[in-house]
Amino acid sequence: MATEACGEKGQVQLLGGSLSSFVLRVRIALALKGIDYEFIEENMQNRSQLLLQSNPVHRKIPVLIHNGKPVCESMIIVQYIDEAWDTKAPNLMPKDPYDLAIARFWAAFVDDKLVPCMRRVFAGHGEQLQKEAEDLVTNFHLIEEALRTNSCFSGKAYFGGDKIGLLDIALGGMLAVLKGLEKATDTVIIDPEKMPLLSAWMDRFCQSNGVKEVMPDPAKQLESLSARRARLASPAGN
Amino acid sequence: MATEACGEKGQVQLLGGSLSSFVLRVRIALALKGIDYEFIEENMQNRSQLLLQSNPVHRKIPVLIHNGKPVCESMIIVQYIDEAWDTKAPNLMPKDPYDLAIARFWAAFVDDKLVPCMRRVFAGHGEQLQKEAEDLVTNFHLIEEALRTNSCFSGKAYFGGDKIGLLDIALGGMLAVLKGLEKATDTVIIDPEKMPLLSAWMDRFCQSNGVKEVMPDPAKQLESLSARRARLASPAGN
Repeated sequence: MATEACGEKGQVQLLGGSLSSFVLRVRIALALKGIDYEFIEENMQNRSQLLLQSNPVHRKIPVLIHNGKPVCESMIIVQYIDEAWDTKAPNLMPKDPYDLAIARFWAAFVDDKLVPCMRRVFAGHGEQLQKEAEDLVTNFHLIEEALRTNSCFSGKAYFGGDKIGLLDIALGGMLAVLKGLEKATDTVIIDPEKMPLLSAWMDRFCQSNGVKEVMPDPAKQLESLSARRARLASPAGN
Repeated sequence: MATEACGEKGQVQLLGGSLSSFVLRVRIALALKGIDYEFIEENMQNRSQLLLQSNPVHRKIPVLIHNGKPVCESMIIVQYIDEAWDTKAPNLMPKDPYDLAIARFWAAFVDDKLVPCMRRVFAGHGEQLQKEAEDLVTNFHLIEEALRTNSCFSGKAYFGGDKIGLLDIALGGMLAVLKGLEKATDTVIIDPEKMPLLSAWMDRFCQSNGVKEVMPDPAKQLESLSARRARLASPAGN
């Protein structure tokens, strides 16, 4: 898993987990920029001293450690990567301030609306699950609508234009868990008939270079999600 | 309240409310950059068509409309202002990518931890209020600690160094409500003895040019908060 990483811009380490959506965002950004790094798998049941020292406030992954200095929070790390390696193509952030604001707006929508909604679907059963799944579908429809009508996105291969950018990474990092969640809960969230643009984007994103190499194994993702759901539903509930 | 605003970079309008912390952040950024704008006071009980069209996803203030194009979410707007008027001093975002990541980290901490905690204090009474206030104090202590030990901040006048920056605005926008909240709930959150650095920063920030001119009237802020708390506690609870 680990590769030695001490290139032109110094040493890069990533504290992460191989099935975490938030870590996946960072791995995609590093892969797209062609940055070598050492991947350090964290056991979240027994967090390392390095993690606790590097992210004492949240004690969460991912943490990027660049020349000994930690950066936390996935989308802050993605922006940091683009800015610290600004001369390295591709640029992940649009140069136009308005396009960047729109990308940031929808990336925040993913974190503030979609992710909590996905968590509720994950924890739901029966009628509650159906209700939460409908909410999640409604939220994804807003993104389909943005793809269709927002001049920053419509008619383009990616949210970032002709190449993957900030919002692609914010949303794309969630796809492995989303697909596992659909299977684990036996629900359909992204119906290609009803969300053709989003569905086509998903396929394009998952098959693109820099992404397909780091996407988690779907079987392992499903197994992990199903096991966690079963634990959550058990009388002990942990 | 409104001023005509059609300068070198086109027309700027801000949909806001005079007592909103999130709107205040944007007003501070605009004031510091010396950008003229038209302030349009929104009635949140009866939102305008312009607001609903400009922010259909969240239907919230603030919204900055620049040459007819809306930007939503306070910290996204603040970054947009700095980037769209990048040749206009002062820069609100550090040039160094690591310093910027640290400022973004703590700005996200304000939104994700402090603000929800302030809301729980606002809604609390009796023992519950005391518990929530203690949580809020604990969170502010983390900021005091960062001011003391983080090399990005320690020994500097502002989080942004010798001038106000992104994190000063993120946290500073909350101060009018925080002070009102302390009075309305008869609690002390920022004890100058226990948080001397944060307390000194608060005084410096509130008295600085570009900030003091747009800070809401403390009496009006307190009156509004007290009235909302009383409505929340009434049997109708709305």
